[in-house]
Amino acid sequence: MNQDLLHPDRLFPIDPKARGVARELYGLVSDFPIISPHGHTDPRWFSEDESFSDPVSLLLTPDHYLLRMFYSQGFRMEDFGVYEKGKLGQEDKREIWRRFAENFHLFRGTPSALWLKHVFHEVFGLNTPFNKSTADEYFDLISAKLTLPEFKPRALFDRFKIEVLATTDAPFDSLDAHQKIKDDWGRRVIPTYRPDSVIDPEHEDFHHNMQLFAESSGEDVFSWKGYLRAHETRRSFFKAMGATATDHGHESALTVELSDLRAEELFNKIVHNQFTPADARIFRAHMLWKMAELSQDDGLVMQLHPGSYRNHNNSLFTRYGRDKGADIPTRMEFTENLRALLNSFGNNPKFKFICFTLDESAYSSELATLAGHYPAMKLGPAWWFHDSPEGMIRHRKATMETAGFYNVTGFIDDTRAFLSIPARHDVSRRIDARILSELVCEHRMGMDEARELIVEITGRLARKAFNL
Amino acid sequence: MNQDLLHPDRLFPIDPKARGVARELYGLVSDFPIISPHGHTDPRWFSEDESFSDPVSLLLTPDHYLLRMFYSQGFRMEDFGVYEKGKLGQEDKREIWRRFAENFHLFRGTPSALWLKHVFHEVFGLNTPFNKSTADEYFDLISAKLTLPEFKPRALFDRFKIEVLATTDAPFDSLDAHQKIKDDWGRRVIPTYRPDSVIDPEHEDFHHNMQLFAESSGEDVFSWKGYLRAHETRRSFFKAMGATATDHGHESALTVELSDLRAEELFNKIVHNQFTPADARIFRAHMLWKMAELSQDDGLVMQLHPGSYRNHNNSLFTRYGRDKGADIPTRMEFTENLRALLNSFGNNPKFKFICFTLDESAYSSELATLAGHYPAMKLGPAWWFHDSPEGMIRHRKATMETAGFYNVTGFIDDTRAFLSIPARHDVSRRIDARILSELVCEHRMGMDEARELIVEITGRLARKAFNL
Amino acid sequence: MNQDLLHPDRLFPIDPKARGVARELYGLVSDFPIISPHGHTDPRWFSEDESFSDPVSLLLTPDHYLLRMFYSQGFRMEDFGVYEKGKLGQEDKREIWRRFAENFHLFRGTPSALWLKHVFHEVFGLNTPFNKSTADEYFDLISAKLTLPEFKPRALFDRFKIEVLATTDAPFDSLDAHQKIKDDWGRRVIPTYRPDSVIDPEHEDFHHNMQLFAESSGEDVFSWKGYLRAHETRRSFFKAMGATATDHGHESALTVELSDLRAEELFNKIVHNQFTPADARIFRAHMLWKMAELSQDDGLVMQLHPGSYRNHNNSLFTRYGRDKGADIPTRMEFTENLRALLNSFGNNPKFKFICFTLDESAYSSELATLAGHYPAMKLGPAWWFHDSPEGMIRHRKATMETAGFYNVTGFIDDTRAFLSIPARHDVSRRIDARILSELVCEHRMGMDEARELIVEITGRLARKAFNL
Repeated sequence: MNQDLLHPDRLFPIDPKARGVARELYGLVSDFPIISPHGHTDPRWFSEDESFSDPVSLLLTPDHYLLRMFYSQGFRMEDFGVYEKGKLGQEDKREIWRRFAENFHLFRGTPSALWLKHVFHEVFGLNTPFNKSTADEYFDLISAKLTLPEFKPRALFDRFKIEVLATTDAPFDSLDAHQKIKDDWGRRVIPTYRPDSVIDPEHEDFHHNMQLFAESSGEDVFSWKGYLRAHETRRSFFKAMGATATDHGHESALTVELSDLRAEELFNKIVHNQFTPADARIFRAHMLWKMAELSQDDGLVMQLHPGSYRNHNNSLFTRYGRDKGADIPTRMEFTENLRALLNSFGNNPKFKFICFTLDESAYSSELATLAGHYPAMKLGPAWWFHDSPEGMIRHRKATMETAGFYNVTGFIDDTRAFLSIPARHDVSRRIDARILSELVCEHRMGMDEARELIVEITGRLARKAFNL
Repeated sequence: MNQDLLHPDRLFPIDPKARGVARELYGLVSDFPIISPHGHTDPRWFSEDESFSDPVSLLLTPDHYLLRMFYSQGFRMEDFGVYEKGKLGQEDKREIWRRFAENFHLFRGTPSALWLKHVFHEVFGLNTPFNKSTADEYFDLISAKLTLPEFKPRALFDRFKIEVLATTDAPFDSLDAHQKIKDDWGRRVIPTYRPDSVIDPEHEDFHHNMQLFAESSGEDVFSWKGYLRAHETRRSFFKAMGATATDHGHESALTVELSDLRAEELFNKIVHNQFTPADARIFRAHMLWKMAELSQDDGLVMQLHPGSYRNHNNSLFTRYGRDKGADIPTRMEFTENLRALLNSFGNNPKFKFICFTLDESAYSSELATLAGHYPAMKLGPAWWFHDSPEGMIRHRKATMETAGFYNVTGFIDDTRAFLSIPARHDVSRRIDARILSELVCEHRMGMDEARELIVEITGRLARKAFNL
Repeated sequence: MNQDLLHPDRLFPIDPKARGVARELYGLVSDFPIISPHGHTDPRWFSEDESFSDPVSLLLTPDHYLLRMFYSQGFRMEDFGVYEKGKLGQEDKREIWRRFAENFHLFRGTPSALWLKHVFHEVFGLNTPFNKSTADEYFDLISAKLTLPEFKPRALFDRFKIEVLATTDAPFDSLDAHQKIKDDWGRRVIPTYRPDSVIDPEHEDFHHNMQLFAESSGEDVFSWKGYLRAHETRRSFFKAMGATATDHGHESALTVELSDLRAEELFNKIVHNQFTPADARIFRAHMLWKMAELSQDDGLVMQLHPGSYRNHNNSLFTRYGRDKGADIPTRMEFTENLRALLNSFGNNPKFKFICFTLDESAYSSELATLAGHYPAMKLGPAWWFHDSPEGMIRHRKATMETAGFYNVTGFIDDTRAFLSIPARHDVSRRIDARILSELVCEHRMGMDEARELIVEITGRLARKAFNL
């Protein structure tokens, strides 16, 4: 392998001594199995185990990091194979791939470039740089490899040494694919209970989702008690199917405790479609509190991912739908917003609550201090736009001094780009090795401590946070 | 030249290997012409081409970075030649200069020290450190040089290799100076349309400014339609005079779309002086939206510089006036505030919208993600208090991973300190070389990529963002 | 001494050249006397000079950095010798100490680990690592040393080379301990006037505190004029006892100027217990303004420490009381909130106002710019959760370019952990040496400048900010 394409020392410190230390620390964990407790892969890939169709559909079209960059530079969505709802695609895939190659320089400095190079050179064994002149060579070789048995989803899963892979699923999902994986393959592809679509009354499909929720649970979800029972029932089913966690994507971290009477009144307004935006806000905030209560009972780890303004670009959303790169972070407040939840459940070390943020300015002030106090709360790793080298460095430096290393969970890849999973975990391991190597060389930590710590971070702590 | 005064490797990484790479990258662009698309130099310097009068008036009195530091340390404004409105100055210039020299240590660690050293040693060729014992030597030598033809404004402009220099101008400015420069010199000193003084109803001279606006445009600016036509007319005149951009300094990034009827009603309240602070706020916010609409039509690049609390120190403002170092940044919100403007015009790749901030906590969350999505929007470089080594490093590290390098504009110096322009651009080029050298040495980017990128950043991208 | 336990080059840059420069700079100040103008040691330690009782009560139980980490990891407060109000402790101290040793790894990466190692290896001369197998050795040796005369408070004070140590005291404190220290020892242990408990009407003991305030001052503190006279009287008494400063811990930085009539009306509502939360907020804000007015008169330096949500964990507070590690930072705004105070008093270079923050996102935007303009205002050093290596680095890098080094005060340790005071000041000196060494090696500052600066920061500037 041409070292310049994917250097074995990438992301390590420049100083030769620190680099040597980082290399040693990284070496201790580079081969560890992958724990992926939060992501968006499709379980049907593994239940069906069909070959991936082509390089564009596999690597480009579903990756909103790539789409948003191209769109920001004046390309049309169609230029990269994304079409308006209800319209059929016309673009030639090879042409799209050439456009991708010609404009690959746009990703200089971004984690996407690091991940793609890992996929190209490590997963597919390509040994030339990716650019205009190699576009066809790449397209042909990747296309050919995708037809081979060793590039089918299950084979890659094993090649990637994935120990556990969590998907994210609607509360009314049948989990048939997970069942099939259990039955005929036995690997650990586990669901995650994500009930946003039946908790947010302003979701565009709320009433349809509630119907599905009713059917899947067999409960009268339009009564408050039935609605709560439906959550219990479905959580219990998810748990039986291997789930260890729930996930909640809210616009803010607001949590509110309500009396049962007040909650029921509010719920009735919601289901009778007689609610104000303020009602919807309080309802979502109370449901976070309620979900914490359920987690305390059934032991599912509770994840909160707040602070993304979804579908900020209205005309793009209307034409192309969700998840096209137009979700934009907003300012987040945690200290006051989480108080209701943490005061009710935060002192219980059995309850596990993991909080993420897109607003880095809360790392050292609010989040590290909350996670460094409440036994129930752990801080998630650098997330989404920040699961990048600089993002991870800022995250560790801003949180390790107050929350330590032990109040932060292991890495999550949060991706639907299956082939990039090893790349993402590798970046995280390299950055941890780098940070620890600097602490060692600055005599802030002993080498024995650093060795023990990187092994714990990558292994035990990653499993422990999610009860894996 | 004594290397300790202005070391050729200043601002490069300490590691010898990375330093070598930075030196090579910097060498590729150190001689590039200066593109200065946003600043506050006086066009009359170049239309008249008179010698600068003395070191104090040229280098000290107009520089609010210097004044604010001295004031913060207990000096009076008068100690540095700034007098109350309507009062005549009494201070001896040589005495002021000695005070400056004696207290130069206050600037340790600040960009002002870097810029001044560049001016002293590079522009004036001084070869001793600046301090109490050399104050007179400096004063005499600079005074003498300023009388020479090669230190007149036009000669310095050429010596500095300035390709284009944009000034900032009131919408009713005659642009006579720009015309004279065009006529008898031919260099590119171009105006920028900055209409704040006729857009902010709370500006202390709003009604007087509107009179001037009426005169300069020949429109009935006290009717809504006439007011809009006046903007169109004057923008068109600025464009004919070489302008490629507008500039807007608002207290926040709020943008609001209004129906024409509602806008006209609001405007009538404004011009009849029957408005509340909330009316003024909505009017400014709508005018930002309106200016975007005009930019979409006439192609002028739109710049927004929000978030400075102007004239925070009331008694200082009353006695000495504006721009005396008492403008203080405030928290800024962009995701919700810019939504109206971006939803209306942000999907148009022909419209160019450049956004700046003084609130660095918005870099990685709101700004890099907006600029990394909307084709119309680009992120400005590190601005004002942050156009410093650490400020630029934080800016790049917080934005490059999400917006990349290609959604950020080239450097702007934003200065009225003409002699510091080469110093400021030089710092920016050195910091870019430094950041790229580290990416290369950490194997996050190839050397060929870094070479191409620094050339693009300093040249093509700097021109492209401003249609230059 | 085993270098690995406490390396002489700890916290210095990794690069050998920069490390050499840092070592030289640190060497200039490593032996400087300690100026500790803000902290929470108990003056009775020095007035009584009794031996400290045992390792747990001295080093563990009073340190909320340690308690919060253990609590966050699921330990009970009782596991570390903290008991519910009114209950008697049962835990064996040696067992607690062993628990501490076994779980010392939790502090990896935190400043607590650095400070404790300094205490163990430097103050007590222990020469083995601290862990499960050495727990008893540590417990026995520390217990034994604590009985020696050279480990009594006064002896340690002199061994630590403390020049001045400020305590924090209630406004009705008799200051008997300070008087005794003056009378029979003569070292400078000075009080600080902290009137929060008679300024915050929502303090749980407000009315009782007001009674004590009345008794100590001999004034009718339930009338507005008497209340103000009581502050004057007590401030004057504190000053006579050596105080040079006041300290104010408010939930926000809000300051409000009120007419005397309006203030008196508000005060009457407060003392008759007929106030709303909004009234309480305005009262506190006005009292900050009023305290600034008094400081302008009597010359006491005014410190403001805003932005901590005290006792966030309600059940913990109810059971164990204050200061158990459950104070959580919130977002702070300074530019608008401080305007009333700064407009009234900020232009007076005789008045000294020092502002701290727990919200680092305000460093470069609001705080460095305010401190870099108003003659009265100085920025405090990295505080509380941020008095750590990374916290100090972020603080300097975010503030030095706008406020310079001369608008920032010297280090404060803000601690009740007496034995850690030398460790904390040592970390601060090392980090300053590190930052300056990098500026020198990057040719941003001359070595002569760096030498002068570190001596000033550690000595003259530290004294000057607090009138010491």
